[in-house]
Amino acid sequence: MSLDAVLARIDQDLPQALDRLMVLLRIPSISTDPAYKAECAKAADWLVEDLKGLGFDASSRPTPGHPMVVGHGGTGGRHLLFYGHYDVQPVDPLNLWDRDPFDPEIQDGPKGPLIRGRGASDDKGQLMTFVEACRAWKAVHGSLPGKLTIFLEGEEESGSPSLIPFMKDNAAELKAEIALICDTGLFDDQTPAITTMLRGLLGEELTIHGPNKDLHSGGYGGAAINPIRVLSKVLAGLHDANGRVTVPHFYDGVTELPDEIRAQWQNLTFDAAKFLGDVGLSVPAGEVDRTPLEMLWSRPTAEINGIWGGYTGEGFKTVLPAEAHAKVSFRLVGDQDPFAIRENFRAWVQAQLPPDCTVEFHGHGNSPAGVMAIGDPAFESARQALSDEWGVPAAYIGCGGSIPIAGYFKTVLGMDAMLIGFGRDDDQIHSPNEKYDVECFHKGIRSWARVLARLQA
Amino acid sequence: MSLDAVLARIDQDLPQALDRLMVLLRIPSISTDPAYKAECAKAADWLVEDLKGLGFDASSRPTPGHPMVVGHGGTGGRHLLFYGHYDVQPVDPLNLWDRDPFDPEIQDGPKGPLIRGRGASDDKGQLMTFVEACRAWKAVHGSLPGKLTIFLEGEEESGSPSLIPFMKDNAAELKAEIALICDTGLFDDQTPAITTMLRGLLGEELTIHGPNKDLHSGGYGGAAINPIRVLSKVLAGLHDANGRVTVPHFYDGVTELPDEIRAQWQNLTFDAAKFLGDVGLSVPAGEVDRTPLEMLWSRPTAEINGIWGGYTGEGFKTVLPAEAHAKVSFRLVGDQDPFAIRENFRAWVQAQLPPDCTVEFHGHGNSPAGVMAIGDPAFESARQALSDEWGVPAAYIGCGGSIPIAGYFKTVLGMDAMLIGFGRDDDQIHSPNEKYDVECFHKGIRSWARVLARLQA
Repeated sequence: MSLDAVLARIDQDLPQALDRLMVLLRIPSISTDPAYKAECAKAADWLVEDLKGLGFDASSRPTPGHPMVVGHGGTGGRHLLFYGHYDVQPVDPLNLWDRDPFDPEIQDGPKGPLIRGRGASDDKGQLMTFVEACRAWKAVHGSLPGKLTIFLEGEEESGSPSLIPFMKDNAAELKAEIALICDTGLFDDQTPAITTMLRGLLGEELTIHGPNKDLHSGGYGGAAINPIRVLSKVLAGLHDANGRVTVPHFYDGVTELPDEIRAQWQNLTFDAAKFLGDVGLSVPAGEVDRTPLEMLWSRPTAEINGIWGGYTGEGFKTVLPAEAHAKVSFRLVGDQDPFAIRENFRAWVQAQLPPDCTVEFHGHGNSPAGVMAIGDPAFESARQALSDEWGVPAAYIGCGGSIPIAGYFKTVLGMDAMLIGFGRDDDQIHSPNEKYDVECFHKGIRSWARVLARLQA
Repeated sequence: MSLDAVLARIDQDLPQALDRLMVLLRIPSISTDPAYKAECAKAADWLVEDLKGLGFDASSRPTPGHPMVVGHGGTGGRHLLFYGHYDVQPVDPLNLWDRDPFDPEIQDGPKGPLIRGRGASDDKGQLMTFVEACRAWKAVHGSLPGKLTIFLEGEEESGSPSLIPFMKDNAAELKAEIALICDTGLFDDQTPAITTMLRGLLGEELTIHGPNKDLHSGGYGGAAINPIRVLSKVLAGLHDANGRVTVPHFYDGVTELPDEIRAQWQNLTFDAAKFLGDVGLSVPAGEVDRTPLEMLWSRPTAEINGIWGGYTGEGFKTVLPAEAHAKVSFRLVGDQDPFAIRENFRAWVQAQLPPDCTVEFHGHGNSPAGVMAIGDPAFESARQALSDEWGVPAAYIGCGGSIPIAGYFKTVLGMDAMLIGFGRDDDQIHSPNEKYDVECFHKGIRSWARVLARLQA
């Protein structure tokens, strides 16, 4: 049977597939830092060449930011679009890595061999599972598994500023029957999942200005307003005593879970104590009347992602600084409107400023939450394929992270998206020592071969 | 008359005195940053050579930190000790300087020519006023103005860790009849002052730990505690709605002003609106029931001098960080006990931590407030000398800053200290674009010649 031949080919080619991934991981394609612009372009070019080798008509397409990689190939079956992203998160704090984040290696891990390096899981390792499935299919069949478009972004970790314009400008070219997105995780180490609820994201940076220059706290302390003190007061008021966000109208559009989804989630063996315990915690820190799974998958949040002001070097400096800064993000659910929340947040901050202080805002991307169209029979086909590979029923789950692309495929191109990924909770994505288990990479490739076989049958 | 000859010599030698100061200002002796250790030693060596040239038996004396400069010279009159410091503050943010902070120059300023550069006022320019007065005296009289010990520190801007041990180890050598300290300012642009009240200082650095590693806010946001949020809450509670510090027992030992001092201060022409207006502010930010002069000179404070945590670079990173940091300092008055306040502050922070969070503290120096012995007739002699030079009566004033050395002379060496300085409020010490007006430097030198003439008569 041809699927078995493809799976056998995948098993046999695994060492070479890992070598190819290593080449891609060595390119430091950090999209948020302009210093790495050339490296992002280099990663895009490498992918274009690899896709061309598989018979795709592929090219690197310029944008005002980092390039998009687009490749078309194959005939027959459904027209499927595959999405992944080749850019990665920054690597600081560098001293917490056990090796150079861009000098990846295979290491022994508690769950077997793993690939250590920035982007191993998010998202270079994941996107290559699909590419490798196509490679094995081509090797066995001499052709790709049906009509495919591959669409790889280089700005996913920095707010995707070029994405919507590019999709709009190339809508006819990109439109397919369904989008496959590989940027999510398994439900647990051995349970595959299709993610059907995604949180949206709104990012805001604020700078509070006080005195017109840095002051000596001896000469002015007590009489002059300190912007760090003002910023602390604002941020301390972002949550009430019950863990709810206090920005006015923040919960507008937040809907309660449908009973059937709530029941399904209650059947999942989610071990909240272990989930928190793995990162050194024991007590859920969110809304007091919600379970941890609800907090992560179906409730909105406000988080302070960065704060800085005054003297932060070694030693001490008795400065009373002219300004203080923070980066704040909101995870959104249901029908929350990121634009309304941005306005309400800014007005809420503004209203709290004491005399002599002003605030500047800088927006960092926004996307509404996403809810997938699980009524489409393709979802059930894919779920069966995943269950076949992993030997346990695949789950429909939520996701605390934001993958705005899923919503954009719907709103910009009118196509549904299916989120299938193979990351594990301990992959340390966005953290030092990111890894991807070789088992996830290997079974991920095999999973895509099975999904493609079912969708294109 | 010989004093007139010394004053004439000072006037004539001013260009050369400025040249010498420029050489010293070019040495980046930033004591708080270990990267500048060799530069601190270089500044000390330069001063030793200059003092030797005036006939002082001078040397650079090693400490576990930066060296002390000690020089002895002259005979007769009172045995006077002069104290200054050759180390300077860090220079960040560097982009706000109009030139390299360590490439000083004479510029035209609104009040006449000024010396622009880090340390011009605090304290290299100030300490050189005394050295130049000795130089002119020596040139005219062939000898120094009486028995002098010069004692210059290199750790004043970084908590003076070596000072007390050095004073104790060399007590017999350093003990004199009175200490003269030049590290303070004029009362206003043309009114000289002797500072008789100094605030103390306690510095604390705290690090709040939460998760055992940086987390992705999508994967954990809502369920995992965020140390920046915890830190913000703690710092936001440092002051109550009336601007009072909330740390328990913080006001123990704070005394009300004696009526005579309060009356004297009310007679000073302190323009609070201009004082705040010069730095872009209009409303005093301290305790609501105190005047700005009280806030600055006779009331204790808590200030956040630095804060940092999470992602602070360009762009955005949706990180939920493992830790968050702040540097906090307290200005102390009266009999406030820095050690008791340190303990109370640490316990107060500890008591506010939610489950799963821990805190680490690092102390950064501490000194009690100082109140000078204005009953000593030497104070009145010096006040007359200053009044003669500036043509207006010199004032006894308070100072918001902390000059712990004054207290140490009393507690370690049993000698009184007299604080005379020539800085102006707009000198931008501890800020970008620090300057010292040439008039202050020039009249400062002349003032010391007059003070020495009266004290050694």
